[in-house]
Amino acid sequence: MHDFKELVAEFGTRFGVAQFPAAPASLYEPGEYFLSIGGKRIRPILCVLGNELFSEITEDAWSLATAIELFHNFTLIHDDMMDAAALRRGMQTVHTKYGDNTALLTGDVMLIRAYEKLQNINPAHLPKILSLFNTTAREVCEGQQLDMDFEKMPSVTLDAYIHMITLKTSVLLAASLEMGAILGGATPGNCKHLYEFGKNLGIAFQIQDDYLDAFGDPEKFGKEVGGDIRQNKKTFLLLHALEVATPDQRAKLDTLLESSGPDKVPQVMEIFKACNVDAWAIELKEKYLQMALANLEDIAVTSARKSALLSLANYLMQREN
Amino acid sequence: MHDFKELVAEFGTRFGVAQFPAAPASLYEPGEYFLSIGGKRIRPILCVLGNELFSEITEDAWSLATAIELFHNFTLIHDDMMDAAALRRGMQTVHTKYGDNTALLTGDVMLIRAYEKLQNINPAHLPKILSLFNTTAREVCEGQQLDMDFEKMPSVTLDAYIHMITLKTSVLLAASLEMGAILGGATPGNCKHLYEFGKNLGIAFQIQDDYLDAFGDPEKFGKEVGGDIRQNKKTFLLLHALEVATPDQRAKLDTLLESSGPDKVPQVMEIFKACNVDAWAIELKEKYLQMALANLEDIAVTSARKSALLSLANYLMQREN
Repeated sequence: MHDFKELVAEFGTRFGVAQFPAAPASLYEPGEYFLSIGGKRIRPILCVLGNELFSEITEDAWSLATAIELFHNFTLIHDDMMDAAALRRGMQTVHTKYGDNTALLTGDVMLIRAYEKLQNINPAHLPKILSLFNTTAREVCEGQQLDMDFEKMPSVTLDAYIHMITLKTSVLLAASLEMGAILGGATPGNCKHLYEFGKNLGIAFQIQDDYLDAFGDPEKFGKEVGGDIRQNKKTFLLLHALEVATPDQRAKLDTLLESSGPDKVPQVMEIFKACNVDAWAIELKEKYLQMALANLEDIAVTSARKSALLSLANYLMQREN
Repeated sequence: MHDFKELVAEFGTRFGVAQFPAAPASLYEPGEYFLSIGGKRIRPILCVLGNELFSEITEDAWSLATAIELFHNFTLIHDDMMDAAALRRGMQTVHTKYGDNTALLTGDVMLIRAYEKLQNINPAHLPKILSLFNTTAREVCEGQQLDMDFEKMPSVTLDAYIHMITLKTSVLLAASLEMGAILGGATPGNCKHLYEFGKNLGIAFQIQDDYLDAFGDPEKFGKEVGGDIRQNKKTFLLLHALEVATPDQRAKLDTLLESSGPDKVPQVMEIFKACNVDAWAIELKEKYLQMALANLEDIAVTSARKSALLSLANYLMQREN
């Protein structure tokens, strides 16, 4: 058994080679550039951890982990275009550095490359893996579309937001775990528990993300606190505040959402605090974390085998950036 | 055995249903719209014809044919974005009708949907099919990138152009045939001959395409003759003219390429005719057609089984639009 930090190092070594052919460089060099920017590599590690719950880590699991990380990077390249984001991790995004057309095609070929990493998987498992990979990929696109739709809508219910977040973020975390487990020979029941664990953990993770953007420690957060507020991003915090605000607070929030003055962030924060949004968010995050831990409990393997997943969950929940 | 017109009708019926879930409509309705614009459906028919060379047509072959047509439509949606094309078949392109972000995501989800059509293929054939599908998909992206690269280059050799056309157009025709054949249980040798048949036919088809744009009968061509010339598109005709032109003709061509006056098309056509570009193109097309027919000859099945493919090849080569 490996802990997740060992696996991060191992995946880093395996993934840190060229992922594309050399030519034509005009197509493949932008892809290699984007992969070189780095990332937390959480999804491929979840895949390998899911695999190791049930077996020794197989070569197929490493291939699948690579496919998952390539897929995730495909979504980032295209999402950056849709968001017109100039930077990611402080580096130029692909469309900024190479232009829209190349970024579009770089994303496309990154997605196809992900599928190439699946083609040599044990044929006994391939249909199941391909099917779950496909469903998940399509759901992630649905989540991205809903996210764009919500931006244009005056109000969104918390349930609709959770549904969107589940598609956009959680299902890939969940499927990464389950696909690893499938390769490890897990039963359908155990696969289901593991998927639910990943899904609930992903929602808790997103609540934490939204929380840190407003209430994080500026010294530890890494990026400017309040970015979501400045951009009027619909977050767990804002949606809850809009639900529980008094008519006065609601009117003030509506005005602030249409302004972009220097006081916007502190004034919205004041309403967030008056509405106890912070305590509510911590409680909601805890609720999803507990559901995730119950799902993990339900998986029929010894608790020793679960320790790496448990510590990853704790690590993700305690991060401050 | 069916002739290709029967298969076009049968595929039309099967493909003419909803190809996506209903919700979220903001994501899937644009995809259905684009599929409803129609098309010649040549690639899926090649798949089914390749299958019927070696067996009764299987349900898997119809699924694969659908995957291929979805893949082709994904490339069209994204190519239209890269070319900033407002219309396709006289209808609005997806990005024109729905905006860039939705078109980007509609293409992505169309590609993923194509892979979903592969997941239930007989597991005995799946790894081979997935592998050839992936390679081909990536090559089509390479062809598109080279096409964009060539637009910015002052000169391109005929060999480089044929390489680009092979990737952008021919490999998908070739792979459609071969993947159908794989599902029909064809031997690797027969698969190879069929692939080469499709590849050479595809090049002949593209030469014909370039020829018709300049020398087609305006009454039968359907679109305005000379469009490629007006847009300075690198075509078989232009590249050959640049190769064989006298210094005087070459100087005149270079000037015309920088102009956009009303005489541009007739003046370029005059040089094309003086260089015998039309006769050369017909001869080159014939050369690739004959190679294709020799490849077809090499396939070890009775000639009766080959008649549908032969008449499709003749149909494609005799078309005037």
